[in-house]
Amino acid sequence: MAAGVVLPGGRVAAHDRTPTPPGADAETLWRTLLAVVGKVTAEAGDPPLAGVGVGCGGPMTWPAAEVSPLNIPGWRGFPLRDRLRDRYPGLPVRVHNDAVCVAIGEHWRGAGRGHRDVLGMVVSTGVGGGLILDGRLVDGASGNAGHIGHVVVDPDGPPCACGGRGCLEAIARGPGLVAWAQGEGWRPGRSATGADLADDARRGDPVAAAAMRRAGHALGVAIASATHLCDLEVAAVGGGLSQAGPLLFDPLEEALRTHARMHFARQVAVVPATLGQAAGLVGAAALVHEAGAYWNAD
Amino acid sequence: MAAGVVLPGGRVAAHDRTPTPPGADAETLWRTLLAVVGKVTAEAGDPPLAGVGVGCGGPMTWPAAEVSPLNIPGWRGFPLRDRLRDRYPGLPVRVHNDAVCVAIGEHWRGAGRGHRDVLGMVVSTGVGGGLILDGRLVDGASGNAGHIGHVVVDPDGPPCACGGRGCLEAIARGPGLVAWAQGEGWRPGRSATGADLADDARRGDPVAAAAMRRAGHALGVAIASATHLCDLEVAAVGGGLSQAGPLLFDPLEEALRTHARMHFARQVAVVPATLGQAAGLVGAAALVHEAGAYWNAD
Repeated sequence: MAAGVVLPGGRVAAHDRTPTPPGADAETLWRTLLAVVGKVTAEAGDPPLAGVGVGCGGPMTWPAAEVSPLNIPGWRGFPLRDRLRDRYPGLPVRVHNDAVCVAIGEHWRGAGRGHRDVLGMVVSTGVGGGLILDGRLVDGASGNAGHIGHVVVDPDGPPCACGGRGCLEAIARGPGLVAWAQGEGWRPGRSATGADLADDARRGDPVAAAAMRRAGHALGVAIASATHLCDLEVAAVGGGLSQAGPLLFDPLEEALRTHARMHFARQVAVVPATLGQAAGLVGAAALVHEAGAYWNAD
Repeated sequence: MAAGVVLPGGRVAAHDRTPTPPGADAETLWRTLLAVVGKVTAEAGDPPLAGVGVGCGGPMTWPAAEVSPLNIPGWRGFPLRDRLRDRYPGLPVRVHNDAVCVAIGEHWRGAGRGHRDVLGMVVSTGVGGGLILDGRLVDGASGNAGHIGHVVVDPDGPPCACGGRGCLEAIARGPGLVAWAQGEGWRPGRSATGADLADDARRGDPVAAAAMRRAGHALGVAIASATHLCDLEVAAVGGGLSQAGPLLFDPLEEALRTHARMHFARQVAVVPATLGQAAGLVGAAALVHEAGAYWNAD
């Protein structure tokens, strides 16, 4: 759980993070969150707050934000927005998907800055994203727009945790690539995450490099589909896997250029995200500081 | 070339169409267009005009609308918007892609009416579309958003006229299906269009029915990708192929339900378009009558 005090211009004045306590119940999780928030606001000198913006793992109801983050079993239907409103009376409280907040952060102050049509992506344990079109965040019917990880890149491909098949996420998520690489003989060191695999690819491990090609190809196909549908200027790719650099981005570009051939589709620039772990905090703050562009709900 | 006088509420008061003269030069085409426009405005009693809205085949520059419609070789870089402004001084003149206008028409007065997040599709000689999200037309960086026909449904699939591979259009466009069906032994009557194929499928021709399954599957995969990315309420499918009814829509639903499994993605309703050939005229008129929702340019 990360918290930050973000100034109106997007600068992070204070920030901290704390591990999500494993197996904790809903109230323990809530107290852990309040503790890290209290710590950073104190560190920033308890400034007057413009509001509270939150990025949280999905699924959630939106904009009511009863959250059931997949990786936090202690919160199932937890009324995060209501609880924060009680804790911060009189302040706007706005909650959105964590990957959407990363995309907002990259659009507002990162790799997508100054562009009107941006797809922000996080390639990590899962593959998430958010969509800014015509200069505004796209929420969609239920706040779920931006699920680039479930664009189908191979209809006969591997099953996906969503229940579908051949989704980008099923192929390019870190644990999926790790499993594939281990099946091909990759022997990781201490840990075996997508970021470790990316590191090994950079160090010249051929199986790890092949895994990056596999992910890059899937990403390129998905971005081709996305830009045909949405006419993007920029796709900003972040998350642990993007650490692989050209080993990921070169095959990505190759697949993208194979499938995105019309003049307008060739204009999309695929770039690494630039804000790193701050993107989510900055994007969540933008739900408050830049509500005109990023908050379309009540 | 079709023209209509469309009232502010969307009713078509007068309309007519005339064949595009084959092989005609730019000025002959222009006079043909003015003639059909003059005929319908006279038929409607030469009412005062609120403006001129046009749907035209792509590609075009946008919003300047120098048009080079693929199927009208006599117009290459033809300054359609400027010419119409000269002809109708003082009136707003707004030009958009023809499939985008169909999508607008279906959103404003057709199958997508009352919904905020709608994909309108035309499955015909090509596969085109337009995207309305959060209640507004999405233009994208260059006015090219909505190209659902080039969402990739099979990365190793057949080459597409766009230069790519495995696009929805490469599989589901009428002429592609006709060629596939003829290769499988379909023997059409007088003509051999996608609509004829759809008719034969309804009459029980097994090869024609298989072609509809092929198209339906590709459409279902593409709509799954689109709704994961854009969180749609409605996908409205029009064009000649949609005449096949359940023979197209049943395999479409099957593929969609295979690939769109998350709760939010299961909410999308795929419905036949309802305005038929009027959709393009009604949508073009909405560029003028409902500019707040559909016209985001100067």
